[in-house]
Amino acid sequence: MNDTTMSEQSPSTRNGLSEWRRIATQRDWPAFADLLVEEVEYRNPASIEPIRGREATVAVFAAVFSVMEDFEYHREYNRDGGVALEFTAKVGDDPVVGIDLIDFNEDGKITDFAVMMRPAPTVLTLASEALKRLPPA
Amino acid sequence: MNDTTMSEQSPSTRNGLSEWRRIATQRDWPAFADLLVEEVEYRNPASIEPIRGREATVAVFAAVFSVMEDFEYHREYNRDGGVALEFTAKVGDDPVVGIDLIDFNEDGKITDFAVMMRPAPTVLTLASEALKRLPPA
Repeated sequence: MNDTTMSEQSPSTRNGLSEWRRIATQRDWPAFADLLVEEVEYRNPASIEPIRGREATVAVFAAVFSVMEDFEYHREYNRDGGVALEFTAKVGDDPVVGIDLIDFNEDGKITDFAVMMRPAPTVLTLASEALKRLPPA
Repeated sequence: MNDTTMSEQSPSTRNGLSEWRRIATQRDWPAFADLLVEEVEYRNPASIEPIRGREATVAVFAAVFSVMEDFEYHREYNRDGGVALEFTAKVGDDPVVGIDLIDFNEDGKITDFAVMMRPAPTVLTLASEALKRLPPA
């Protein structure tokens, strides 16, 4: 171990992460459902209450990704069973910077997905635009 | 390396991080100035433009921490030369959850400090309250 702090990711976490990166790139929302546990919690940047469940989470992601443009991941931070991924995107002409905190279970499925983003005013614009594109409940 | 993804932190990063955790706990703002490079960039959750320089960054942190209550760190994510720290706090009665992305140079000094926080409406309340507590420019 030498004189360093180490974070390890299990093969199942790495596989889950790799599949999520593919899904985000290809906007493959049907496959996203398969990557989520049924009782997944999605913590969105605009409200404190999580969105619960696979179906609602997939619907919100599809709506949010239809609003954001030029979405791109940058730095990756690791911990055991989880990852923090930094991203940039645009909402209209406005740049946003964010972080995805993703927890994986021992099968490589996502149990919790939290998104934080700055700046706050653009987050509110994004949430409002995404809401318009959600299918009626 | 076996079949895992590893992130290493150098001793200087670990020392810098340990000092930042002490400063955050003790609100030791004079020591915070010593931990920042002179041209540090602080990326706050309310606006896209960074705040530049040691003095301005320390002043904003002191103001923000005077508004937040029950500040507490939780999970830590690592990468080479940097860390992502999850936190919770309260702004009045409203809970916030955030992440600090901190970059350290080879001397263990902070070169870049980005904060993202949810939910966005409470971020705007926090920014507005902190602004009132900043010393006049």
